[in-house]
Order: sequence, then structure tokens, then C-alpha cells
Amino acid sequence: MSGGPYRRANVGGVSVDLRSDTVTRPTSGMRQAMAQAEVGDDVYREDPSVRALEEHVAGLLGHQAALFVPSGTMGNFCALRASAPAGTEIVADVDAHIVTYELGGLAALGGVQTRTLTGLADALDLAEVAAQLRAFPGGQTYNMIRTSVLAVENTQVRAGGRVWALDRLERLRVITDQAGVVLHCDGARLWNAAVALGVPPGRLGEIFGTLSVCLSKGLGAPVGSLVVGDADLVERAREWRKRLGGGMRQAGVLAAAGLYAVRHHLERLADDHRRAGELAELLADVAPGRVHPELTETNMVLVDVPDAHAFAGRAAAGGVLVGTVGPTTARIVTHLDVDDAAVSRAGGVLAPLLRELPPLPR
Amino acid sequence: MSGGPYRRANVGGVSVDLRSDTVTRPTSGMRQAMAQAEVGDDVYREDPSVRALEEHVAGLLGHQAALFVPSGTMGNFCALRASAPAGTEIVADVDAHIVTYELGGLAALGGVQTRTLTGLADALDLAEVAAQLRAFPGGQTYNMIRTSVLAVENTQVRAGGRVWALDRLERLRVITDQAGVVLHCDGARLWNAAVALGVPPGRLGEIFGTLSVCLSKGLGAPVGSLVVGDADLVERAREWRKRLGGGMRQAGVLAAAGLYAVRHHLERLADDHRRAGELAELLADVAPGRVHPELTETNMVLVDVPDAHAFAGRAAAGGVLVGTVGPTTARIVTHLDVDDAAVSRAGGVLAPLLRELPPLPR
Amino acid sequence: MSGGPYRRANVGGVSVDLRSDTVTRPTSGMRQAMAQAEVGDDVYREDPSVRALEEHVAGLLGHQAALFVPSGTMGNFCALRASAPAGTEIVADVDAHIVTYELGGLAALGGVQTRTLTGLADALDLAEVAAQLRAFPGGQTYNMIRTSVLAVENTQVRAGGRVWALDRLERLRVITDQAGVVLHCDGARLWNAAVALGVPPGRLGEIFGTLSVCLSKGLGAPVGSLVVGDADLVERAREWRKRLGGGMRQAGVLAAAGLYAVRHHLERLADDHRRAGELAELLADVAPGRVHPELTETNMVLVDVPDAHAFAGRAAAGGVLVGTVGPTTARIVTHLDVDDAAVSRAGGVLAPLLRELPPLPR
Amino acid sequence: MSGGPYRRANVGGVSVDLRSDTVTRPTSGMRQAMAQAEVGDDVYREDPSVRALEEHVAGLLGHQAALFVPSGTMGNFCALRASAPAGTEIVADVDAHIVTYELGGLAALGGVQTRTLTGLADALDLAEVAAQLRAFPGGQTYNMIRTSVLAVENTQVRAGGRVWALDRLERLRVITDQAGVVLHCDGARLWNAAVALGVPPGRLGEIFGTLSVCLSKGLGAPVGSLVVGDADLVERAREWRKRLGGGMRQAGVLAAAGLYAVRHHLERLADDHRRAGELAELLADVAPGRVHPELTETNMVLVDVPDAHAFAGRAAAGGVLVGTVGPTTARIVTHLDVDDAAVSRAGGVLAPLLRELPPLPR
Repeated sequence: MSGGPYRRANVGGVSVDLRSDTVTRPTSGMRQAMAQAEVGDDVYREDPSVRALEEHVAGLLGHQAALFVPSGTMGNFCALRASAPAGTEIVADVDAHIVTYELGGLAALGGVQTRTLTGLADALDLAEVAAQLRAFPGGQTYNMIRTSVLAVENTQVRAGGRVWALDRLERLRVITDQAGVVLHCDGARLWNAAVALGVPPGRLGEIFGTLSVCLSKGLGAPVGSLVVGDADLVERAREWRKRLGGGMRQAGVLAAAGLYAVRHHLERLADDHRRAGELAELLADVAPGRVHPELTETNMVLVDVPDAHAFAGRAAAGGVLVGTVGPTTARIVTHLDVDDAAVSRAGGVLAPLLRELPPLPR
Repeated sequence: MSGGPYRRANVGGVSVDLRSDTVTRPTSGMRQAMAQAEVGDDVYREDPSVRALEEHVAGLLGHQAALFVPSGTMGNFCALRASAPAGTEIVADVDAHIVTYELGGLAALGGVQTRTLTGLADALDLAEVAAQLRAFPGGQTYNMIRTSVLAVENTQVRAGGRVWALDRLERLRVITDQAGVVLHCDGARLWNAAVALGVPPGRLGEIFGTLSVCLSKGLGAPVGSLVVGDADLVERAREWRKRLGGGMRQAGVLAAAGLYAVRHHLERLADDHRRAGELAELLADVAPGRVHPELTETNMVLVDVPDAHAFAGRAAAGGVLVGTVGPTTARIVTHLDVDDAAVSRAGGVLAPLLRELPPLPR
Repeated sequence: MSGGPYRRANVGGVSVDLRSDTVTRPTSGMRQAMAQAEVGDDVYREDPSVRALEEHVAGLLGHQAALFVPSGTMGNFCALRASAPAGTEIVADVDAHIVTYELGGLAALGGVQTRTLTGLADALDLAEVAAQLRAFPGGQTYNMIRTSVLAVENTQVRAGGRVWALDRLERLRVITDQAGVVLHCDGARLWNAAVALGVPPGRLGEIFGTLSVCLSKGLGAPVGSLVVGDADLVERAREWRKRLGGGMRQAGVLAAAGLYAVRHHLERLADDHRRAGELAELLADVAPGRVHPELTETNMVLVDVPDAHAFAGRAAAGGVLVGTVGPTTARIVTHLDVDDAAVSRAGGVLAPLLRELPPLPR
Repeated sequence: MSGGPYRRANVGGVSVDLRSDTVTRPTSGMRQAMAQAEVGDDVYREDPSVRALEEHVAGLLGHQAALFVPSGTMGNFCALRASAPAGTEIVADVDAHIVTYELGGLAALGGVQTRTLTGLADALDLAEVAAQLRAFPGGQTYNMIRTSVLAVENTQVRAGGRVWALDRLERLRVITDQAGVVLHCDGARLWNAAVALGVPPGRLGEIFGTLSVCLSKGLGAPVGSLVVGDADLVERAREWRKRLGGGMRQAGVLAAAGLYAVRHHLERLADDHRRAGELAELLADVAPGRVHPELTETNMVLVDVPDAHAFAGRAAAGGVLVGTVGPTTARIVTHLDVDDAAVSRAGGVLAPLLRELPPLPR
């Protein structure tokens, strides 16, 4: 994600970092869990903390198995490549993280084509989605590429953390099953989706054939993601993890923090959502049309500005770090390290900046 | 392209093959050109017939250089991969030949991501196209993939041979130049587009940074395509051709047929277009709504039927071979080997079949 | 292969091209076969000449099926990649054509590792070869790469056309069978090996699981090679051919020349061998130690010179074109287009050049 | 590395794990460093502990820059791929870790060919090595693959931790410089090599253009390796790390342990070497010819046994875990978690097992 250029400012000792939920520092509880973690050589499958995390998350999401990996990018790759042979295609949204922020790894490392649809999460009719899957259940047509996976992202980062409707996901599962296509979830922020929907994570997890979920975003762990699916899929993903160089030795020091995060920081995501919503309302009041509170469904607020980099620079000068997701779109993200007071301070800096902007063209 | 299952029938010695313009057999003129071709080892760049063809086509399209390759698939790959490093992306239409009928080679062989837009040729606003190009002229944003090429297809095979508007192409060139992105044309049927627009091929050729054009479709040559661009691009394409195994020895025997085809069969494409148009009108009369003559801009007619495979089977029983491009879409293509009489016979078989179909749902 | 820089000279209208057996021009018999070939769209599998060639060559080599491809590089790739999944390895000789002259396609396009041994054809003990195959018949060891194919080359181009001993090949087949590894033959010049051994090609063909054989070298056809193996292998190779862009339309015009070549030019390879042997004897007489007639087993003569490029330049000035295969190694190749008189003229030019060279250091 | 099947036994609470130096658990000093590490989002380059580690290791090895990655496999890939374009080749030893234990990633993920030589570290004449580099300083020969990197491994794991002679490395650097080829070191155990040679690590580091070094083997850190080279190389490696999914967020929790390890555990490698040497002497006494103490140059002892898996099983039953590196080769590795007493216990278990073995065939 962008955001990097706007380094942590320190204005009078007060700085609020709202660029992304990836910037959180491990809590003392996590630090303690890491310090006490029982570990072994995970390449030999002997790290008890890694195994405990993998079993816990697999169970939480209603699947047989899970695999700890160092990042969401690797989680998506291993899950997707384990289902998608080279020379097949993955269908995804045109704005998906996997085709935007992962440097083309599916093609560059995996030899898998991506073909993207516009409005996969909402605007696109599902019959049209079904028509785009090339799956040849009755035998391959020699010259046409085969679709192996349909990948959805929940929540959707480029849409500002929006959540898929449950029934749309369920209908997609029916469609992909009929076509013999795997339904994958890039669940970097699946936890936020579950909390926003008020359902347990397993209610979402069971809809998908494979998932990648992150510990390092809303949950606040320092490092790590998991590939989730059935046992065979996870074994294939393990081979890809090794090839990519994601096999780590005493990875239990990380897994322990992750397990702590899953156990203690899941429900508190509701606070992040509430704070994002309040900030969205505040900013929409001062700059109507630039912020749409009804689209802030989880922990992100998108702000339409004339020049996102300039806006982020001005905010940073005021001690508030925000991200950018396009030339005219700034992004504000709440997370574990910002409390009500911090969000209030941020509002106090951002609202005047927005108020100064010219009115939106009609 | 599909069509394979419907083999040439022989009903009373009368059969009309309208599956694709790829099925043409070399004419006696081409045969004679092949028999007399002066040849050499083209891997050593010593085949005079290949060089003559390359120089002729480069000149025709207003570029410095060209490279003979055995197929349009290889032509697109070599041109695109020569511009697109592994780990970058090519933006194309969601229905483009390169993401449908080339078995994912750009990703599988070249490590290049494809990201596809819907309605690139017409419906999509060009400002939106521009916004989708990730080109970072002012320095790369570390985590976002870079767009290296925008690929258009002219004519568009999945749309039934439709032609791009000239001014839309020209505006795309401005957009891609501004973004530092190469504009490529999959010109398997560029000749048809030029004839339909009433412009010389060079008028289209000069709009693009790179092209791939085919000799084996409308022009009727047995084998071959060309990569077209500046001299450096063509040298890089040559290295990829060698790696793919597309370097051929005395390829002049093919090039001579191709050169004959370019010289003798370009203008006659107008006849193919006229015949396709007449057939479209005839079929639209008997089955309104199933055929749209206004969309038959070149040598293809798409027919909306309840079951395309069944329809093709019934047509084949009547001695007429048609292709399918989707479960409910049959395709009729005119070409060098079908004259007025053959098209008339085909109409006589197809019209009754269409008349039998149930009226279209409203 | 190198040789390109030394273009065909014309000294007094007399020039002899001995750079490679790839430089031959189609004979009038071939030209006639091409002119009369019955053809169809081979991408639809409807070209009768291609099918006739494929069936003939499969039968000749004792295998179920064959596939026509535009080059030996593509033949090797399709055969090897059809057996070797990405992430496995092919073991070959360190000097094999597939790791020297194919621009790394197995890795670059196919994701397959090559690991090379020294002296595979002769010096290396077969027990050591067996020990190098990592095949895990009893279950994969998780972290070690799996060997999928052992590739041999017969005749070996970098060794000057040397021929494998039959019994060594047969013992390799036993070793690879035990290890569950496919034994592949890069048979660009398999025909020469069979003629040199005095056995029918099928006697060699049956030893291998897969082969690639060329029509464009000793046999003198203008273009083309074949992948040979069982029916399943050939179907997988066909998919790779399509992806590479090697699917050609009316390829029968080439296949007809190839079929003619296989039928008419196989036995005459003995003449090429005899001529190469005579030339080797002649040159060894004038420059002992620089040429080793006992190593000229087929149609090539390697010559040890102080500067191969300079030597080739001087020969070209005298109207004789020779190739280079290393900084101090020139190569002379006999073929269909050079008869006794031409070889005699070549000897008359080359012998004096060799005589001028300083004696070899001891 | 193999070893996995022989899980940690617990015989009377006493077990010695000598399978690999990767099995060490973090010390309390490392744990404390992790607990107190100052961290940030390293994907934004804001983790001070990661930066401190990178700067320290770069300086130690005499290079401009370094990059923290989760494994040695990723370290090698990023360093090598940053120097080697797809379609070029890396020359390495036939027994190198990169072609044995990294699942073919260079080819599968990176499109880079490997070509391997036998005896690169010692037996092979350097003139022969030079002749194998295909680097075309005077312009590429079109059809021959280009060598981009020569990779050496120091210490060499498959050879039992043997150390390269300094002057051989220096002569290789001259050779690669002349050829325009990058000299890379897989330095997973470079620290052991430096200690064995009695030179500072920088004395080795400066010989190479690029290195990958590990924190998780002899140094005993739980996770991590570094790519080392000049600033441009490291930037390119950083992009590959991101693509592979090796970008981690608050990676400082790992880097802090790594920095502790580099600072505190480098010199103590001499103890590991002494213990391995003593064990080798002991075992060679009871089974002459099965163990070669003169080849135990660092922390590994190879043992020639009739059946390595069976031997490892018997040792495990006695409470001593050893690894296997071939069907008849067991491996013993000393490391941070085994002291004199543990090695003595191991000797007490292993010596009787060796004594029972049949004498070696002559």
C-alpha cells in the first residue's frame, strides 16, 4: 500500500498514524507471548507454537488445515498457486489487491494468468460472472484457457474496506462449484468483515475453498498470515512456501504473537469500526461529498481531495499521517494503536484541512 | 478458436466451411510462389524471401522493422514480452484474444500479468482507461505493479470482427504516451479493419508502438504472422522467438506465400465483408434479434442461438460448417475460399435452421 | 549454433557452405511435394499431410504418436515440459544443446531446473549418473528437488557429432526406469546416429520415453521437427505447442517436404559421414593433433585452431564457410548440398590454411 | 535438508539433536532482545531494528547495503535474480544447495537456468571454469545463452561443511570480472568459513559481488537471512522480496534477535568446530574409513554407513538425532545448543553403533 513517503511525524510529541492498520506495534501481551513461546524447527514441522496457531485458525475458519507464512502476499500466492496450474487463469476484481499490490507475482512467479472483472463485489450481475468462468466441466476446449480460481477480497482494500454481502458470496460459491472452479478469499481483513457482519469468522470461512488471512493488520500482530483450506491444499501450499523461501525455522516466536492476537484482538475490531465511522461523519459534515460515511463499513475512510499527496503532506505537518490510494484519494485507517483520543486529535487536524478545500464540482 | 469438433462434412460433395478464415488453402499463385522461393537459413538471417516479406510488411505499416513468426500467438507474445518485463502488467480487454485463446502464455511463459477492462473498445470512458494505467512517470510507487503495455485488438474477434474507431485509437495513443506505456495492436485481422475503414494499413499501423499481424486469416496464406515495430523492439522479439522455438530454417518457403498474399489478397477482403453483410441481412430477416447486421463490420456474423453446439451440428449435417464462440453464440466467417455461390448455399441451409428456433425472450 | 557471421561468400562463383547441416535448400523433389501437398487447418487437426508425417515418424521410431513443430528447440521444450512439471529438474550433459543453444527456455518459459553432469555420454560412471537422479520412488523428501527427466543428445553437437554407444543408452534406460525418471533424447541428428551405428532409427527410438527429431538438418527439409512419444505425452506437448505459438495452420506445405525428406534422404546420410571422414583424414595429415579423424563418427569435423573466428574468416575468403563452436574450435559439417567435388574443393582451401598454423604445444 | 523424519527423541529426558544447526532455540539474550526491540513497519522501511541489522551486516561484510529476508532460500533467490535476468544462466556446483534444496526456485519462480559443474570448489581446474562462462564481453553470440552469475557456496553443506581456499576464491573473482559475470556467495554458513580460516567475515565478503548470509544456522537466531551487496542490487532484491511475499511488517522482533546473534555468537563457532572435530576423531577411531576427520573443517561430520536412514533410526533410539544427506551418508552437526557434555553423550551412543557396522569394502 502507499503511505511510505509520509513518515511518522512528531509535532509536539503528538502524532497519529492513520496510514494503515499494518503500522501497529506489538502490545506487551504479544511481547510476553513471544518471549515465552515454545519453539522448534518449523521447516521440520517441529515448532509447537506454529502448529498451535495453524490448528487454531483452521478451526476458527472451519477448515482442516492452515499454514503460517510471513505475509499476506505469500499467503495469497501459496493458496492460489496450489489450486491454479501454470497456464490457467484466476478471475478477480480489476481492483483486487492481488493484481495491484503484489507486483504481479501470480504471473511472474507462478505462470498463472489473471483476468479481471469490474464490479465483482457488487455492480456486476452474477450471471455475467458465471459466464466469464471458463471451466469446461464437459472437457476442455483445446484453445481456450481454463479458469481455475475465482478470487474475492473481503474486506476490499481499494474500496475502502467494504464488506461483501453474505448472500452474494454464497451464490458465488454455488456458481464456482457448478463450474468446477475454486473460490478463494483474500481475507487480509476477513476479521473486519466478520465483525462488521456480526457473524463468527467461520461463517465466512466455510463459504470458501481456500483463504489467506492476516495477523498483522487489524489484529495487530507484528508479522504473519495463514493459508487455510483442506489438508491436501495446505500440503501443496507448503511446497510453494518452501520454494518461495517462506519456510522459517523457529517461527514460533512470531506465531505466538499471532495466536495472542487472534485470541485477544478480534472483538475489539468493532472499536476500530466505530471510530472510523465517527471520523467519517465528522469529515463529511465539513466537506460534504468528499467523504461518504455510508461506505465506511469497517476501519477505513476514503477522502476525495484534489491532490492526495499534497493533502497527506499537509496532514503530516499537523501530526496526522494518512495514506493515499490514488491521485485524488486519501485514506484514513483506524487500528489497535489509535484510541478515541487519538482519533479525536486526528479529526481536529483533518477537518480544517478539508474545510479549506474548494467545493466539489457538480 | 473453437470450431474443431465440426469437421469438414461432405454432403453430396457440397460443403461450405465458414468456421473461421483460418481454414483457407493456399491458392495456386501462392503454391507457385512457394515453389520458386529463393531461400536460405533464416536463423542466420540469410533467407531472402523472409527478409523481403519483413521489409514489405514493415513498410506497409509504417514501421522500421518486422519479424516473421509461425503464428499470431507467437507474434503477440514476442511483441508484448519484448516491451513488458516479467512482473509488469499488460492491460487489455476482458475478451481479448490474448487472454482467451493463447493459453495464458503471457503469464505462463513470460511472467507478465494481464489485467483486463470491460468495454475497452467502445463502452469504457477513456478517462477511466487512463486512470487504470499504472505507469509512475514520476518514479515508481514501490508496492504497485507497473503497467508496461496497453493492448488492443483490431478487429476484435470475440466481438464478431468489429472495428475500432480511428479517433478512439488515436486518443489512446496520446493517453499511453503520456503514461509511458506502449500501445500494442493484436492485428490478426488488422487488414480487415483497414479495408472496412477505407484507409491504407499504414494509417492504422502508425498509431501503435508495436503490432502483430497475421498472413493466415483473411489474406489466406498457409502459415505465418509478423511482429512489427522499431528496430530495437524487433531485435528483442527475435531473441524471444528463438527461445520459444520459432526460429525456422528455410522459412522463405512460407514467407513467399505470405508475401504473395499481402500483395494480392488485401483489397479483396472487401468481398468477404460484403458477403458477410449480405448473409447477416438474410439471417436477420428470418430471425430478428438473433443476428445484428449493423454489428457485422467485417467478415464475421454472430448468431444468438439456444445451443451453439447443437446448432453447429445441424448446420454441419446440412453441409455448412459454422463455429461457436460461446454456449449460445455461433459464428460465421467469410474468407478467400468461399465465393458468392458458396455463401448463397450456406444461407440456404442456415436460414431454415434459424427459422425453426423459438422466438427470442424479451 | 554459431556460424552466422560468416555469410555465404562467392569467390569466382564457387562457394562451399560447411557451417552447418541446417543451411541446405529444399530439393526439387521437396519443392514438388510442397506444391502438391494436400492441406487443412492443423490447429483443428485437419491437415492430412501433417498427420501423415506424424504417423510415419512415430512408426519409424516405434512410438504411438508424434507432433510436428517448427524447430528442434520447440520439439525439445514441448517433449521435456510435457514430462517435467515446473519446480522439478532435468539432468543433462553440461554441453547439451538444451542448456547451450536454446536460450534457457526450459527455465525461462517452463520453470524447469537443469542440473548438468560432465561426461554423461562416455566418461561418467553410470553408477554416478544413477546417484544423481533424485526421484524418491518411495516418497518425496520434502526439501529436495525431484528429477523428472534425464536428457541425452544423440548425436552430440558440441562433441562434433559423436554417437552414443547403444549399450550405454540401454543401461541408462534401466537406470531411469528404476528411478521413475523419463529418458528423453534430443535427436536433432538421431538419423545420423542410426546410420552411423547401422541400425534402423526405431532401434534407437524404442530406448527413449520421449524424443525430439529434426527434419531440417541432415535430412535437408526446410523447416520442422517432431516430438515423439506415447499418445498422452503428445497431447500434453500439443497444448504446450499451442501456448508457445507453434500451432500452424496449413502446415502441410512444410510437412510434405519433411515427409519427402524422411523417405528419401535417410540412407544418404552415409555419404555425408564418408565425406566428413575423408576430410578429417586429409586435414589430420597436414595438421596432426588439430583434427582427430577417429572422433568424426558422423558428419562433423572439429578443428583445433588458435583463433576460430580468424580461421573461419580466412576460410571464407577462400570460398569455404566453416562454423565455430568455441574460441579455438572450428567446425566443418557435411550435408545434402555438398557433394564429393565440393568437399574436395573445401579440402583444397582448408588444408593450406591448417598447414600455415604453428605446431600444437605439447 | 533431510532430518525431518527423525523427530526429537526423549530417552530418559536426555536427547541430543545433531541433525542440523538450524534446530537451535533462541537464547534468553535473544529473547530479551526481541522483547525490547524497537519496531516499525518495515514494508515502509520504518523498522529501526531491521535497519540496524542491515547496516551492521553490510558493514561487517564490507558492502554498501543489506536486506533482511525470512530465509536463506529467499536470500539466494533475491540476490541471484536481482543479477540474473530471465533467460540467462547461473553456473554453480552440481551439489550446490541452490540446485538441491531450494525446489528449483531459480527456474520455477525466476526463469533463470542453472548449469552445474562438478568439483567447482576444488577438483576442477580454474581454466575450465573460465571456459564454461558464456559472457560475450565483445557482444552476445545470438544463439548461445549468456552466463550472468557464478555462484559458490561457503561452507559447502553437501560436502560436510568444507571451506573454500581463499586464493581460489580470489582467482575466481578475477575470472568472473574478466567475463563480466557476477560472483555470488551462498554464505548460509559464511561465518563458519571465516572462523575456520581465522579471518574476519569482511575478508570473505569483499571477494563477492553479492552474498546471502544466514542468522539461523551457526549463529542461532530463530529466523532470518540477509542479502548483501551494493545499494542498487539491494534495491532490486527488495522488489523481488516483495513479490515473493517476504516483506514483513514489524520484522524488528526478528531482526533484534539476529543482531544479538551476530554480535554474540560469531566467535563461539570455533567451539562448534572443535567439538565436531573431536567427534570425527572419535568415530574415525572406531570405524576407520567411515569418517574422515581431515574433511571436518567446520561443524559437520559425514559418516559413511550402509543405510543412512536405518543408522539415523538406531541413533534416535539411543537419544541422538543425526541427519542424512544421501542413502549411505549420515550427517552430524554441532551448534549453539550442544555443549561438550552433549557431544560426549552423542559420541557414547554413536561409537558403538559404528563399531557394529561391517568393515568397509576395499
